[in-house]
Amino acid sequence: MAGYAGSMTWVLVLLLAGAGGAFAGESARKVYGTAALMVVVEREDGRVAVIDSVEHELIGRVAGLGDLRHASIVFSRDARFAFVAARDGTISKIDLLGMNVAAQNKAGDRSIGIAISRDNMYIMVCNYEPGGAVVMDSATLEVVKEIPAEFTRPDGSKSRARTVGPLDTADNLMIFALMEGNAVWVVDMRQEGFPAVRKFEDVGDTPYDQLITPDGRHYIVGLLNSDWMGLLDTWKLDGMKRIDVRERKTALKKEGEKVPLHHIPHFESWAIAGRLAFVPAFAEKRVIVYETDGWTVVKSIPVSGTPLFVVARPGGREIWVDNVGEPGGPGERLVEVIDVERLEVKKTIDAGKGAIHPQFTPKGESVYISVQGEDRIAVYDADSYTLVKDFPAKRPSGIFSSDRASKFGL
Amino acid sequence: MAGYAGSMTWVLVLLLAGAGGAFAGESARKVYGTAALMVVVEREDGRVAVIDSVEHELIGRVAGLGDLRHASIVFSRDARFAFVAARDGTISKIDLLGMNVAAQNKAGDRSIGIAISRDNMYIMVCNYEPGGAVVMDSATLEVVKEIPAEFTRPDGSKSRARTVGPLDTADNLMIFALMEGNAVWVVDMRQEGFPAVRKFEDVGDTPYDQLITPDGRHYIVGLLNSDWMGLLDTWKLDGMKRIDVRERKTALKKEGEKVPLHHIPHFESWAIAGRLAFVPAFAEKRVIVYETDGWTVVKSIPVSGTPLFVVARPGGREIWVDNVGEPGGPGERLVEVIDVERLEVKKTIDAGKGAIHPQFTPKGESVYISVQGEDRIAVYDADSYTLVKDFPAKRPSGIFSSDRASKFGL
Repeated sequence: MAGYAGSMTWVLVLLLAGAGGAFAGESARKVYGTAALMVVVEREDGRVAVIDSVEHELIGRVAGLGDLRHASIVFSRDARFAFVAARDGTISKIDLLGMNVAAQNKAGDRSIGIAISRDNMYIMVCNYEPGGAVVMDSATLEVVKEIPAEFTRPDGSKSRARTVGPLDTADNLMIFALMEGNAVWVVDMRQEGFPAVRKFEDVGDTPYDQLITPDGRHYIVGLLNSDWMGLLDTWKLDGMKRIDVRERKTALKKEGEKVPLHHIPHFESWAIAGRLAFVPAFAEKRVIVYETDGWTVVKSIPVSGTPLFVVARPGGREIWVDNVGEPGGPGERLVEVIDVERLEVKKTIDAGKGAIHPQFTPKGESVYISVQGEDRIAVYDADSYTLVKDFPAKRPSGIFSSDRASKFGL
Repeated sequence: MAGYAGSMTWVLVLLLAGAGGAFAGESARKVYGTAALMVVVEREDGRVAVIDSVEHELIGRVAGLGDLRHASIVFSRDARFAFVAARDGTISKIDLLGMNVAAQNKAGDRSIGIAISRDNMYIMVCNYEPGGAVVMDSATLEVVKEIPAEFTRPDGSKSRARTVGPLDTADNLMIFALMEGNAVWVVDMRQEGFPAVRKFEDVGDTPYDQLITPDGRHYIVGLLNSDWMGLLDTWKLDGMKRIDVRERKTALKKEGEKVPLHHIPHFESWAIAGRLAFVPAFAEKRVIVYETDGWTVVKSIPVSGTPLFVVARPGGREIWVDNVGEPGGPGERLVEVIDVERLEVKKTIDAGKGAIHPQFTPKGESVYISVQGEDRIAVYDADSYTLVKDFPAKRPSGIFSSDRASKFGL
């Protein structure tokens, strides 16, 4: 065969499939582009399922990824690789063509979030333990920098804060927040040594999650115990403004009704559609709509449970909301579709027990939903709201579409 | 080998490279994701060059694509395939993994534009000859529907109009304009037989190009001989509003200066950044800035030549403008960078003779520019405005990044 390599009229490519059993049930290797893959976390088995979202075909699974509770995934620029951050600090680089683990390393003992630098060169991981952030080489996952998130307590002693984030920006910054330190740090990934070029203090009580607006310009941080969110113009980096969110505490609950906070909503799945932002209320059965010019409340929209992921359909005409609800109750089966023009629920879908984390295909004609309580991934036609396909999956949770590769903060 | 196919612990994949000489100069086949490929039209040779925009490496070339003057390219959802519309009506489906022509067919005798339906199932091509649009199966390029763009002349006779477009929307519509008919038609790709569900008449004199706003909601059509553009809300489809563009005729030219219209600017490379639109003026050396709420003029920004492609850097902080200028004059060498906050030119780059069509990598850290008069493709670092790489290429023109696969109207 070597003789052919020189003229290259045709070539043989040998691909090694790493994970055992990755291709069970398939009789021939599929050839596929990587721009529209769905990577689904199968939490209990420490593995991911990789699905072609054009044909809705399972490509395979990759296992051995650590403790995947609240696992987070980002993609290399060409979407060949998925980088998975496991709760136990294991960072895995999955080759989505070879369907194997191309590299693996520990970023810490307890990790929460991951991002890839604008130039595709580095991975940043936010850790709970030890508190801080870690920069890894995206080729090898070698740790190239540790950034302890040190803050000073009121008594003058120093400690390391748990961090949340990070998010990448168009200027190749990485932004993360210090949960205990009530701070937001901005790291410049273009500079030698990855310095924290800004440290905003006293942003509010207990940052818990964050987002970059779809236009790439603004950073928003949510605060568990403050009546505002922080807003930062990443072009100017001139200070955190406050967005009033007292509305989220004005309950619509009936008297005596209790709605526990089952999960803390994740900001990155807040929805921004046109000039409206759709925000899940804590421990309340409603979605709050803000207009993003002055960040005033436009409306609160009642839904069936406490919303966790609030996701804009590509094109911005609908918002899809899951409900964590009471375990075993009807709320946690329902996915609701909000009409963006009318600002009301136009459709309620009974997607099954524990349906969470709607993720659209890149142009929004289909939506993938993890039905945790029924060990399956459901695919809906987003025009007709009908089920078109089911994949068996062990306790599926987060779903990540590879078109995130070209989006800031995702 | 057949025995291995059952257990599938590892598999062999055989890829046939179609075009002769596709891999000249490469010693081993590269494995790559498809989400960040640059496909560059080499006009005179009827071929395209395919470049990995992460590593800035030439992957190969595919030839035999017809007359590529004003060629237009769209991508399949997974970005494995590029669909190329040649001026002579040849439509080619290029396999960007196999680097060969996977299918080819004629859409007409003279084609101008191409789009792929939201569901990845169909290609639509706009033709000058015969006037109208053609729908092809995206798998085979078989023609499944012809849509003659018939209009009635003032004298009552009927004729077929040249069409421009089409553009795809989030509702799986295709929209195109009739150059002679002064009309805009909307085809519903979800319905059997692809009916034209709306035909807007008298939209203005001679539509020449169009765009979908980045939020996916609005369609805008440019008119060669009217003092307005047409604006359509694709959610409502309730009529074409008029945007006043008389500003484009209020020349900034010195008395006696003549600035010929070398090329008609292409709308799809108008830039919208935040709430500002950056529009090339016809035959004038300036870019007009509109605010997109009321479409009033904010400013006219002088540039060195007549701008052709006006492109927003991902993140929206800069607008890059090429200049067709006087052939052989200094203007046609220059690419200018407009600062979106200050609304003025912050940097002028001498990119070489006939530098056109800046195309950013998906997150905007690099920009590819065709330097037609010097037979090369230049790659600039977009932060430092320095040249980082050159690729020899025969009269390069349009450059298309495969992250367009997930964007409406591109």
